[in-house]
Amino acid sequence: MPNITKLTVRYAETDKMGVVHHAVYPVWFEVARTDYIKAIGMSYAKMEEDGVMLPVVGITCRYRQPARYDDEITVVTKITRLNAARIEFSYEALLPDGEAACEGTSSHAFVDAETFKPINFAKRCPEFFSVIEKCAKQDLGEE
Amino acid sequence: MPNITKLTVRYAETDKMGVVHHAVYPVWFEVARTDYIKAIGMSYAKMEEDGVMLPVVGITCRYRQPARYDDEITVVTKITRLNAARIEFSYEALLPDGEAACEGTSSHAFVDAETFKPINFAKRCPEFFSVIEKCAKQDLGEE
Amino acid sequence: MPNITKLTVRYAETDKMGVVHHAVYPVWFEVARTDYIKAIGMSYAKMEEDGVMLPVVGITCRYRQPARYDDEITVVTKITRLNAARIEFSYEALLPDGEAACEGTSSHAFVDAETFKPINFAKRCPEFFSVIEKCAKQDLGEE
Amino acid sequence: MPNITKLTVRYAETDKMGVVHHAVYPVWFEVARTDYIKAIGMSYAKMEEDGVMLPVVGITCRYRQPARYDDEITVVTKITRLNAARIEFSYEALLPDGEAACEGTSSHAFVDAETFKPINFAKRCPEFFSVIEKCAKQDLGEE
Repeated sequence: MPNITKLTVRYAETDKMGVVHHAVYPVWFEVARTDYIKAIGMSYAKMEEDGVMLPVVGITCRYRQPARYDDEITVVTKITRLNAARIEFSYEALLPDGEAACEGTSSHAFVDAETFKPINFAKRCPEFFSVIEKCAKQDLGEE
Repeated sequence: MPNITKLTVRYAETDKMGVVHHAVYPVWFEVARTDYIKAIGMSYAKMEEDGVMLPVVGITCRYRQPARYDDEITVVTKITRLNAARIEFSYEALLPDGEAACEGTSSHAFVDAETFKPINFAKRCPEFFSVIEKCAKQDLGEE
Repeated sequence: MPNITKLTVRYAETDKMGVVHHAVYPVWFEVARTDYIKAIGMSYAKMEEDGVMLPVVGITCRYRQPARYDDEITVVTKITRLNAARIEFSYEALLPDGEAACEGTSSHAFVDAETFKPINFAKRCPEFFSVIEKCAKQDLGEE
Repeated sequence: MPNITKLTVRYAETDKMGVVHHAVYPVWFEVARTDYIKAIGMSYAKMEEDGVMLPVVGITCRYRQPARYDDEITVVTKITRLNAARIEFSYEALLPDGEAACEGTSSHAFVDAETFKPINFAKRCPEFFSVIEKCAKQDLGEE
């Protein structure tokens, strides 16, 4: 089940073109990702305390329509890839009229918070992994 | 009536000290200000379209306790000064436990959006001004 | 000829992971792009005044090694695609030891600053286009 | 001797008003502060590694003239207060024509990087303190 995050465009997020600056979308996607993880009963803040981090290894953004100050934005987030070493989220930031402002993805590695070394997340956190795996299957329409 | 704005600390808003970077609070205060104006039935986005801007002429911040990733922050906003040329808002950003993270103020001039020249806001937008004046009196406990 | 931009990591650009936040790289790439355009004798600020804008239509970033506070970063910028409607820049952000921190691309449309409609840049600014075309050929090793 | 830092306005630092967003100046002042400390032969990055942090306890900014995209900004930084527990820096961000864009201050406490508890910096780092003390006296015109 894709997760829905609502946010309102901040003045500081606009640039002299009068629209949201393109580097703001990865920040929104991060907010949406935190939200997704919370929605499935987990917490990214707690994951980090438990010694697992999800550094971003890659992002892509395609910009469709400009978003403007005070627009209410809906971010639709889903998992589009998952294995024990990596996870990929996909995002759609929608304008108030439902048009896409930006579509993007972020890829993450599961690493140890101390050593920054890759870990096998399925082994390190089997319960969390099985919850995420189930969500991923739903998002991918495999279940 | 002071206005209440809720927001959640974004990962991107933290710095290597592990806490919210100090330059983030003026951005939150701006979000809270937009919210305040909306709460009294106005819209800052519309004000700008109508040719009036409120550029910031000064800010102050006093940092009390660090805020952390994913904390839910409550910003309490009120008007602490008002005349036809200037307006000052005061803010308290509170941590989940009610402790202050940061207290601040922002001062603004009423200017024409085209010329950036000062305007007499009471004359230019008498209805809006009288609404704001009433709020300011309530915030200052004069009414 | 790829262009070189030097910048120093700001404290505000780090996050609680202790390293540069991933959404900072598109901002650095934009700085490097402004610099590239300046290096070939043009000015993006002037282009906008002349009524041409280059909104970002897509970005990609691959993160390699973390960059840290106060690191001196070298961004190597080149043009990797060009036609009358679009331009693509590629970037490498290098750490002080020469290792890549992040590699990325940005794609841009040439649009009219008033209408935001696509323009034929080769026709609108033939002189600028021919300079850029020459640089693109050099960057692509075609000349 | 006040220290001079040069920086160029980034596109991402502007907002829909067409000028530099007011929350950017504290970030520039932080860049200028890092630079000041480096100019007197020290390093803030090294200070943190050595277990001392200088969290910001207060800031003020007065905005004078708008700065614009691609403007070269000169920040003039000096120490305006110093004792074993606290330090205050003052900043002037100047436009290319020498006019002030923004004047500000930042106050900092010397704290232990582990405990975040206040420390006596004069005792903890006597050599660094005596260098800073000398600079402060020069900045204040007392020497």
